Amino acid sequence: MFENLADLKIYEAGKPIELVVREYGIEPKDIIKLASNENPYGPPPKAIQAVKQTANLMHRYPDDSFYELKEGLAKKFDIKDSNIIIGAGSDQVLEFAIHAVMPKKVLMARITFAMYEIYSKQFGAKILKTPSSMHNLDEFYEIYKQEKPEIIFLCIPNNPLGECLDAKDVYEFIEKIDEETLIIIDGAYQEFASFKDKNKEIKPKDVLKYQNVLYTGTFSKAYGLGGMRVGYGIANEFIIKNLHKLRPPFNITTLSLKAAIEALKDEEFVKIGIEKNFEEMKKYEKFAKEHNLKYIESYTNFIVLYIKNSTLIAQNLLKKGIIVRDMASYGFDALRITIGKKEENEKLFTILKGLIN
Amino acid sequence: MFENLADLKIYEAGKPIELVVREYGIEPKDIIKLASNENPYGPPPKAIQAVKQTANLMHRYPDDSFYELKEGLAKKFDIKDSNIIIGAGSDQVLEFAIHAVMPKKVLMARITFAMYEIYSKQFGAKILKTPSSMHNLDEFYEIYKQEKPEIIFLCIPNNPLGECLDAKDVYEFIEKIDEETLIIIDGAYQEFASFKDKNKEIKPKDVLKYQNVLYTGTFSKAYGLGGMRVGYGIANEFIIKNLHKLRPPFNITTLSLKAAIEALKDEEFVKIGIEKNFEEMKKYEKFAKEHNLKYIESYTNFIVLYIKNSTLIAQNLLKKGIIVRDMASYGFDALRITIGKKEENEKLFTILKGLIN
Repeated sequence: MFENLADLKIYEAGKPIELVVREYGIEPKDIIKLASNENPYGPPPKAIQAVKQTANLMHRYPDDSFYELKEGLAKKFDIKDSNIIIGAGSDQVLEFAIHAVMPKKVLMARITFAMYEIYSKQFGAKILKTPSSMHNLDEFYEIYKQEKPEIIFLCIPNNPLGECLDAKDVYEFIEKIDEETLIIIDGAYQEFASFKDKNKEIKPKDVLKYQNVLYTGTFSKAYGLGGMRVGYGIANEFIIKNLHKLRPPFNITTLSLKAAIEALKDEEFVKIGIEKNFEEMKKYEKFAKEHNLKYIESYTNFIVLYIKNSTLIAQNLLKKGIIVRDMASYGFDALRITIGKKEENEKLFTILKGLIN
Repeated sequence: MFENLADLKIYEAGKPIELVVREYGIEPKDIIKLASNENPYGPPPKAIQAVKQTANLMHRYPDDSFYELKEGLAKKFDIKDSNIIIGAGSDQVLEFAIHAVMPKKVLMARITFAMYEIYSKQFGAKILKTPSSMHNLDEFYEIYKQEKPEIIFLCIPNNPLGECLDAKDVYEFIEKIDEETLIIIDGAYQEFASFKDKNKEIKPKDVLKYQNVLYTGTFSKAYGLGGMRVGYGIANEFIIKNLHKLRPPFNITTLSLKAAIEALKDEEFVKIGIEKNFEEMKKYEKFAKEHNLKYIESYTNFIVLYIKNSTLIAQNLLKKGIIVRDMASYGFDALRITIGKKEENEKLFTILKGLIN
């Protein structure tokens, strides 16, 4: 039994606060988590309030049509309900898409969101990657021509590196790809990228004109609901209708649904969080320059700093209660650090300074 | 694209309260939902309190090891953490198992939980069903011998009919099945069955001695957390380790995790709910006898009443704000009714009396 799973590895999530409490005996209040690109400003206040009021309805399954949430998203993006599918995080929409296509080959950047590879392998696909770590559309096209993968993943901006393709280049690329290949545009961090540079903005509405493009978005990052697992896919009705065939009933919780509906009404909270994110990011860039550290210009809520002996540095930060993501497993001597709140970042700078000098 | 999905149908969930509000203009407070086997007594009070206190942490991903929840379950069932996998409802554990096996054939009772068939078809399996609607282990064994399905589903007690196999018969059956076939025991309603009749009790610990048995349980029914999507699978370490290869990270929400941990500490709430369930069920049996309606003896929190023109009756109940499940799609002129609270059941009896006479 399970012979076909022999090559699959288990995904290693970022260390949770609970584990650092257990392993290092540090008090939860003294732990700074800058490892999972969560929104440091918390969930939207309207979502918190609504969830508290709805907690007594946890015994009830949610409205499985997700009517009100889809209405909210349809209005926000100027599209129709029928162009939307809701997932338990945008991850689950990726899973629906991969399962729906059952690809023999998929194509992605060498360093990109780990779940593309994990889900694709679960469905037996061969993984093709560009030689460059960051997205390079020429390389994507060369491999596409030779290998004709059934799915191409574009992470715009890219997690875990932070770089971002220009929207016009993406659209030009899409035009060159045959309609039998599904192109997935993962927009998990689009709110950040489009705020920083309008040239990076992929409008979900714009993908509807393509027969073979699926856009995915999430409430986990800018909307501050990472723990509630709500994401969405946007595409033409034919794609969405097919993905729905693979959606299990009640795939988000009653409280997740409520929180996401309310988060959409709290755009001011989201905007302020993004503004602060880039103000704080400037401090990381300044810190890097002052200490002669290279970094990747980021269009997200995290930054990759190249640091010698990153694994050791990450461990030493952990002992001080600061959780960051070591990039050694990607072959980089670097840390991926989520941009935290002012005081969190300052504490990190102070400790990191001591470790690298 | 998507040619392999052509035969898949979309699962129709029970009508949510929100839809009845939208379609019939009935106020939410006037709607009685007896359609989805939710716990009518609500979520456990300890879970409500904990979720309200944790709502401000919705931006944080959960501890992906589910350490504390597994500890609680391990203690409850006298097993090890390594015998447990957590799913977004026990449905998701079923999905992991089917995906892990990728069966060519699966076997189930003619009328049983719809997701067995839906998930199995998603992975390309042929569906074998016993001639009898209710579980008949002789029929299961005959088909098993001829067809050698890779998965056998036993729903104990059975949703949506309510009947329940005796544990000793189940164990005898397991002994006769080759280890290359995975037997899944769906215990979603086991808390009800084992309370009513000890002969029906399947102890999760007892399945660990088999190489090829997976037990699934849920917080959705007796534990009052249907909307939070938390279930679990219990099996030997080899099975659990393999299922983990297909578990996406963070597959339950931060608040679901908290609610489930607290629900396990609220066994008194659970016990009282089950006692009330069977007190109220007696009234349904009495009602049925008084009105010459046949019913299936139930070991769950719902009852199937045979009623002529069930589809019309269900529609007329809906117009009065009472949601039940019509069984016509299963080929039965019958209603499946979740046992509600005293006042809900009384209102149903009054209205139903008017409709059938």
